[in-house]
Amino acid sequence: MLTLVSLRQISLTDCTQTNVSEELMLIGKACRFVECISSVGVVGSFACLHTKSRNMAKSKFEYVRNFETDDTCLRNCYIVVRLDGRNFHKFAEQHTFTKPNDNRALGLMTRSAHSVMEELEDIVIAYGQSDEFSFVFKRTSTWFKRRASKLMTHVASQFSSSYVFYWKDYFGEQPLLYPPGFDGRVVLYPSNRNLRDYLSWRQADCHVNNLYNTVFWTLVQKGGLTTVQAEERLKGTLAADKNEILFTEFDINYNKEAALHRKGTALIWEKRDETIVKRLKLPNEEEKEVPVTRSRRKVQSYHTDIIGDQFWEEHSDILEADNC
Amino acid sequence: MLTLVSLRQISLTDCTQTNVSEELMLIGKACRFVECISSVGVVGSFACLHTKSRNMAKSKFEYVRNFETDDTCLRNCYIVVRLDGRNFHKFAEQHTFTKPNDNRALGLMTRSAHSVMEELEDIVIAYGQSDEFSFVFKRTSTWFKRRASKLMTHVASQFSSSYVFYWKDYFGEQPLLYPPGFDGRVVLYPSNRNLRDYLSWRQADCHVNNLYNTVFWTLVQKGGLTTVQAEERLKGTLAADKNEILFTEFDINYNKEAALHRKGTALIWEKRDETIVKRLKLPNEEEKEVPVTRSRRKVQSYHTDIIGDQFWEEHSDILEADNC
Amino acid sequence: MLTLVSLRQISLTDCTQTNVSEELMLIGKACRFVECISSVGVVGSFACLHTKSRNMAKSKFEYVRNFETDDTCLRNCYIVVRLDGRNFHKFAEQHTFTKPNDNRALGLMTRSAHSVMEELEDIVIAYGQSDEFSFVFKRTSTWFKRRASKLMTHVASQFSSSYVFYWKDYFGEQPLLYPPGFDGRVVLYPSNRNLRDYLSWRQADCHVNNLYNTVFWTLVQKGGLTTVQAEERLKGTLAADKNEILFTEFDINYNKEAALHRKGTALIWEKRDETIVKRLKLPNEEEKEVPVTRSRRKVQSYHTDIIGDQFWEEHSDILEADNC
Amino acid sequence: MLTLVSLRQISLTDCTQTNVSEELMLIGKACRFVECISSVGVVGSFACLHTKSRNMAKSKFEYVRNFETDDTCLRNCYIVVRLDGRNFHKFAEQHTFTKPNDNRALGLMTRSAHSVMEELEDIVIAYGQSDEFSFVFKRTSTWFKRRASKLMTHVASQFSSSYVFYWKDYFGEQPLLYPPGFDGRVVLYPSNRNLRDYLSWRQADCHVNNLYNTVFWTLVQKGGLTTVQAEERLKGTLAADKNEILFTEFDINYNKEAALHRKGTALIWEKRDETIVKRLKLPNEEEKEVPVTRSRRKVQSYHTDIIGDQFWEEHSDILEADNC
Repeated sequence: MLTLVSLRQISLTDCTQTNVSEELMLIGKACRFVECISSVGVVGSFACLHTKSRNMAKSKFEYVRNFETDDTCLRNCYIVVRLDGRNFHKFAEQHTFTKPNDNRALGLMTRSAHSVMEELEDIVIAYGQSDEFSFVFKRTSTWFKRRASKLMTHVASQFSSSYVFYWKDYFGEQPLLYPPGFDGRVVLYPSNRNLRDYLSWRQADCHVNNLYNTVFWTLVQKGGLTTVQAEERLKGTLAADKNEILFTEFDINYNKEAALHRKGTALIWEKRDETIVKRLKLPNEEEKEVPVTRSRRKVQSYHTDIIGDQFWEEHSDILEADNC
Repeated sequence: MLTLVSLRQISLTDCTQTNVSEELMLIGKACRFVECISSVGVVGSFACLHTKSRNMAKSKFEYVRNFETDDTCLRNCYIVVRLDGRNFHKFAEQHTFTKPNDNRALGLMTRSAHSVMEELEDIVIAYGQSDEFSFVFKRTSTWFKRRASKLMTHVASQFSSSYVFYWKDYFGEQPLLYPPGFDGRVVLYPSNRNLRDYLSWRQADCHVNNLYNTVFWTLVQKGGLTTVQAEERLKGTLAADKNEILFTEFDINYNKEAALHRKGTALIWEKRDETIVKRLKLPNEEEKEVPVTRSRRKVQSYHTDIIGDQFWEEHSDILEADNC
Repeated sequence: MLTLVSLRQISLTDCTQTNVSEELMLIGKACRFVECISSVGVVGSFACLHTKSRNMAKSKFEYVRNFETDDTCLRNCYIVVRLDGRNFHKFAEQHTFTKPNDNRALGLMTRSAHSVMEELEDIVIAYGQSDEFSFVFKRTSTWFKRRASKLMTHVASQFSSSYVFYWKDYFGEQPLLYPPGFDGRVVLYPSNRNLRDYLSWRQADCHVNNLYNTVFWTLVQKGGLTTVQAEERLKGTLAADKNEILFTEFDINYNKEAALHRKGTALIWEKRDETIVKRLKLPNEEEKEVPVTRSRRKVQSYHTDIIGDQFWEEHSDILEADNC
Repeated sequence: MLTLVSLRQISLTDCTQTNVSEELMLIGKACRFVECISSVGVVGSFACLHTKSRNMAKSKFEYVRNFETDDTCLRNCYIVVRLDGRNFHKFAEQHTFTKPNDNRALGLMTRSAHSVMEELEDIVIAYGQSDEFSFVFKRTSTWFKRRASKLMTHVASQFSSSYVFYWKDYFGEQPLLYPPGFDGRVVLYPSNRNLRDYLSWRQADCHVNNLYNTVFWTLVQKGGLTTVQAEERLKGTLAADKNEILFTEFDINYNKEAALHRKGTALIWEKRDETIVKRLKLPNEEEKEVPVTRSRRKVQSYHTDIIGDQFWEEHSDILEADNC
């Protein structure tokens, strides 16, 4: 009864037959559906005949929200989001990255990570190398209600849009040929030891890969080997052997290579005193310039060892105590 | 014993005392850690004394990989990834989007979604409206081994980098002020009915919001009301009332408003015959131009009703049969 | 201030110094803890000084509830809980089960499954063989709010307590030597096809194992082979070979073996008319016996093929339509 | 071709037409199914025509295993399984449990928990009160590969079968009327603090409930109040008020009530020296009785405060260090 009245109103207003039938169809569909899922319970009971408007029809479909699952991260654990470049080998080729390291590309990665840290709350440290970056949310973070999907997609999104946005700051006139992609994951670490071991794992990975790549490209670029020959030469060599090749054959002391390449980049928050000059109006209408010093949190980057204790002792505010 | 020898080798190569102590520290740390987790089992047993290189040390930390959890999506369900703009109300203000709809912004959203569909496999339909876009992976997709985190972060990343990359194609000289962010989520739908109801829910949402926004901004832009007055005027009105206001007071038939605004945008794959002219070399060394026709899959956009059956009957290849 | 007063009250009431210090300690602990997790947010703010009673102290610990994770089963999917006996090989030995099948043990399994079906709501079919039983909750079930942990633990618990409870009904005077254990799991199936394939998988498993066991124990019990010889004899044989051995050597037609052993046991709900005699008091104070017929749902067991369509056509109310 | 041969073999062996058609049907089904899911990938490719036996047919259904999801518990966290009695209010009524506490019922709960601890590995402490029991697996446990479903169902199963098995040891001739049910859940706790707070929460719950029940049933049993009157009397009272009622009106010092009721039951492993007499055969064929002392782990029960530090200091081996 009510339905008929309301539909008449719609038809008068809409002045089109199409719309009425569409509206009717919508109601019909919703009703039919209700029969199917009437026993689900999550939907609740409602009388189909009183479906008066699209707005109400919309609510007929809203049961689909119940298919979302909760992916809240376990409390009191560090939440790590790691991003990895998709097909960055090819991306590097196409954009003529220098080998073994391209400082423009590394700078852009760091700039994008910086943007993520400033946009999202509660990231206490980020660590990056090559085409990957890890972001660590503090144990007690309640950002996004600790929902894993929201955390990792927002990080992936902000990083990716920043990568394109800041491209020209690092590559100048060289054009970005297509929008790059990154994928991500979330991992939880319950203890400081576990978290530090995670970061150590990534930095050890940086070391191993960079040492290999440094020797490999030195053999190719300075030693005149083909890539196949260089690969063959390095098969089965240990770290010591690789250091030896660099030192003996090319007079390169690996430990004096750029820390950026050997250690990757750690980003943390640091308090810095910032002094600005403020212009104050005095009671006697005079103006006066006054220096004002404020303590501000700023993101700082480090290319240093984060496996040993020293870094963590010098930045003891990064980790929260284990006994909480 | 072995350790001492290898360390000596390193020290000779490295020529720096620092490095040796660092290497030793690394070994010490790994050993200490092993004591802690010796009973975990996931780590496996190994003799600490034989840690000879960073490469091996790296493997000491690798136990942290076991903290990753499997988030494989249930088989035989549609996987929906929905992205939502972060703080897009503010973003729209700052970039002076026209009200109630900005065709440049909608075009850019669609272009970015298009980029996602071409980059990722197995997306059978995408639907977008306002600052959101939903991507539907086919039921039987094994893309990324159905890992939820990979699927949603890659979608979020590709969409976001595309948004910045294609900005100038839609906004021309108007600069993008900062890299925008999107967050995402994954929802699974077991049946065609559930999936269609999900898409209907989003399109009904589009309808409800667009009708409201159309009347609201008409009242403000043409009716001279303040935003507060317009809000007051619309309080408690039904769809029919809003249609009535538009028709009676402003001579606007809502159903004749742009389908893009009323229905949003659905993207699907369609086979299109494509004819190109190929230059062939004949045996007699002559050249000849030959038209070659190929069937190619292309992304097509629709601004049409996807709540009713017609769309699905006309594009019956989008959904897979329920009885599999 | 308030605290001191309330503690004095407690001390007067309790008349023990111990209790006061204990109560104080409790407060101290709660306060200390609050400092640790003050930034968690999930706890909320409260003034430590006003902790007056254990009741309030209890609420200090209640934050631990937030560590529970939601494990709601995806909607519109069949929920299957399968139980498996723990160390039932040894259990069978110790309780001298007959080989290859012990009808008492199978009867007890079915009796326990029956008990589960009557105790929990929404199980539409159960299927068991050997020391395992699967329980299928209907797609639209909201029992336990579809929480996987609750569903599987309750099934495991009810089944296990029933197994011990009904033991003597099947084993008479033979004592149960110790309480047996079962473990369980939950699996979701989106479509009827998937669910039927799951059940087919289990029944095919029953067939394969029972055929093997039947031949194996016939070779041992009637053929005089040792278990090692029997195992050797059957290595690499196909189903046809095994049928042949039984038929040729022992005159056994496998297909005439007990259906209980070949097909396992399916339990479903069936409506049966039940007539009971009721004694009614007539207006004239006379009494009269009246037969009353009611339709009642009862669990029925089948030892029949559930891989083909026939069973499902004859019991078409077990499965819900796929297109919902 | 192969199929036909093998089917003929089967028909010769089976001597029944039914079986052949059944076998054929099975193959047909498998083939049909393959078409449906051919694109799933998880199934793998296989040629339908060569389906020769049930054994192979079984493997056609095995794809359903891929619907199982991984529920491995996060590493380095305590795993707590808590069981709660289902409808134990009614169960207590029907089995005439004494109010407010029935020592037979509490003893049976503890006996069942004891059985769980001895049957499952890696439980370091269990705590029970009323109709609930919590089991704590050590942080580094790899029991059941840390699979949540297996852990909680096995605990629920072993507890429930033990409850029925040991019933007569606590209730003697009083019969158990029906098999009781328990449900369970799994919760993870990353730190010692979190775990202790969980256990404190349960013990505080025990205290609050037992104090209430003690006063309530004293008012009814000794004070002559109805249950409604007792409830009314206690509305809004604090712990101190309840202590006061007991002391002033009934001369009961609550702190002298049984620790079992006030504190619940904690079960832990303890090493005890056990001396047994062994009969040894000497070289000269003589026999001699020799006392042999061994250190054995045994489950010990405590009815004591586990909120404060003392218990944990005295049993410092229960918890593992946080800094691992």
